[in-house]
Amino acid sequence: MSETIGMIGLGNMGLPIAENIQHAGYSLKVYNRTASKAAVLVAAGAKSVPAAADVATKGGIVVTMVSDDRALEAICSGPDSFVSRLGAGGVHISMSTIAPATARKLAEQHEKAGVAYIAAPVFGRPEEAAARQLAVCVSGPAAARKRIAPILAAVSRSIFEFGEDPGAANVVKLCGNFLLAAAVEALAETFTLAEKNGIDRVHAFEMLIQTLFPCPIYQSYGKRIAEHTYEPPGFRLALGLKDVNLVLQTAGEAQVPMPTASLLRDRWLSAMAKKRENLDWAAVALGVSEDAGIRVGS
Amino acid sequence: MSETIGMIGLGNMGLPIAENIQHAGYSLKVYNRTASKAAVLVAAGAKSVPAAADVATKGGIVVTMVSDDRALEAICSGPDSFVSRLGAGGVHISMSTIAPATARKLAEQHEKAGVAYIAAPVFGRPEEAAARQLAVCVSGPAAARKRIAPILAAVSRSIFEFGEDPGAANVVKLCGNFLLAAAVEALAETFTLAEKNGIDRVHAFEMLIQTLFPCPIYQSYGKRIAEHTYEPPGFRLALGLKDVNLVLQTAGEAQVPMPTASLLRDRWLSAMAKKRENLDWAAVALGVSEDAGIRVGS
Repeated sequence: MSETIGMIGLGNMGLPIAENIQHAGYSLKVYNRTASKAAVLVAAGAKSVPAAADVATKGGIVVTMVSDDRALEAICSGPDSFVSRLGAGGVHISMSTIAPATARKLAEQHEKAGVAYIAAPVFGRPEEAAARQLAVCVSGPAAARKRIAPILAAVSRSIFEFGEDPGAANVVKLCGNFLLAAAVEALAETFTLAEKNGIDRVHAFEMLIQTLFPCPIYQSYGKRIAEHTYEPPGFRLALGLKDVNLVLQTAGEAQVPMPTASLLRDRWLSAMAKKRENLDWAAVALGVSEDAGIRVGS
Repeated sequence: MSETIGMIGLGNMGLPIAENIQHAGYSLKVYNRTASKAAVLVAAGAKSVPAAADVATKGGIVVTMVSDDRALEAICSGPDSFVSRLGAGGVHISMSTIAPATARKLAEQHEKAGVAYIAAPVFGRPEEAAARQLAVCVSGPAAARKRIAPILAAVSRSIFEFGEDPGAANVVKLCGNFLLAAAVEALAETFTLAEKNGIDRVHAFEMLIQTLFPCPIYQSYGKRIAEHTYEPPGFRLALGLKDVNLVLQTAGEAQVPMPTASLLRDRWLSAMAKKRENLDWAAVALGVSEDAGIRVGS
């Protein structure tokens, strides 16, 4: 009989990840705030349960993919959480992008219940999750990492190990998102400089990706920013601010001045103040144009 | 009989470019402050002349590749410069990375002498110049651009046209170098954040270039910065400051706030103050580490 895995969080990323765990032959017990999201999984044999804690099997494995630190802490806490129901020998695979400090704190709490906390944040969009093309960064107790390796393999194309520190995988996930955000800001400044010198933004973009930056990230964000097209969002601007704030929080705790991250925070805050939270996060580029006296699209 | 092209400036970039013009079947008249640099060209039939102005043939073409705006203005000015010797129908292909404003001013002066000024800055390292793998951005009068197209084709793998404005090609060249410098700073902040969280810089680098940033620029600069190896320099830090200053000058003239460029200037100035002018420009990353209380390599 196949092992039953618990899964909490069936959003844009959680649902395709759960489907791939199911495709790999595991049984699933799933919970989502909006229960209807589980329909496709239930049709394929999963059991939808009424409370987050109910996904846990004693000594088993639970995967979580929720929106932020607060949501994760909420489902992990209390005398009857899924963590206490997992109990000794249980493993929690935590895939959400959260603060390394939160991961470390949760890991300590889990340990008291005999549960191993594994940080396993992922790089990739929902369509990449569906196609098993995610990259997973993983850290936490070695024995538990070994036990869950087949599950990570079932949902990803590559796995990067970052040792025992449960916060480490979250640090490198934040590093990646920080580099993306910094590239977005730099591209926006670049195209604005070109535009105000009479140069077509898209023409400058095409030259740059054919010469210095022939990589998918610069191609996709560069195109959005050159054309100022921010709908539909690939990654919501509000979530981008969350990540920039997590970078600065982590940098503060480690005493690492990150002037670029500080600058990004102000840029993202301004975009939030202009009600752009539901556009793609590259829409911070609108603020760069506005700062240079350019009104976009009107 | 083949057309004779004049060439001024036989440095790391100018020499391989001159060789490729020669290989394409043109005759060359060359000038360099250090005349011995011309030896390989002379051995293959080029004529080395004693003064910059002597490279010019009436109504012909002169290519320049010199260190900065001041050097270029010096050789272009005066009653007996190569520009006045070119005279009506002449074309100056200016490949140096200079301020767009300087290009525009020179273009006006050239016009009075009947000479077309073509801005043709290049992307690529000396080894790429040797292998005809440069990308050239070109702008200036259309007829002259058409005339010189075979020469640009002889030295590059791709040519990007940016219209009549003689400053435009220099603007996009600066855009490219600005994006590189911004990526260097962001990588340095990233690896410092990782390091102070107990994560190996090189391991974080390897994950990032296999996931989000599989492009040559991130691979080469990322490796330098992760390992803190800045010798031998690919591009000298002092030249990087020149370019950052040109970006800010151009942004100032066009009224484009570029907070990332402002931040880069301070970073580069600090590296100059620490006598790092002859290291690779990625050595600004040492300052990022030092700001976080890390002493590198001692």
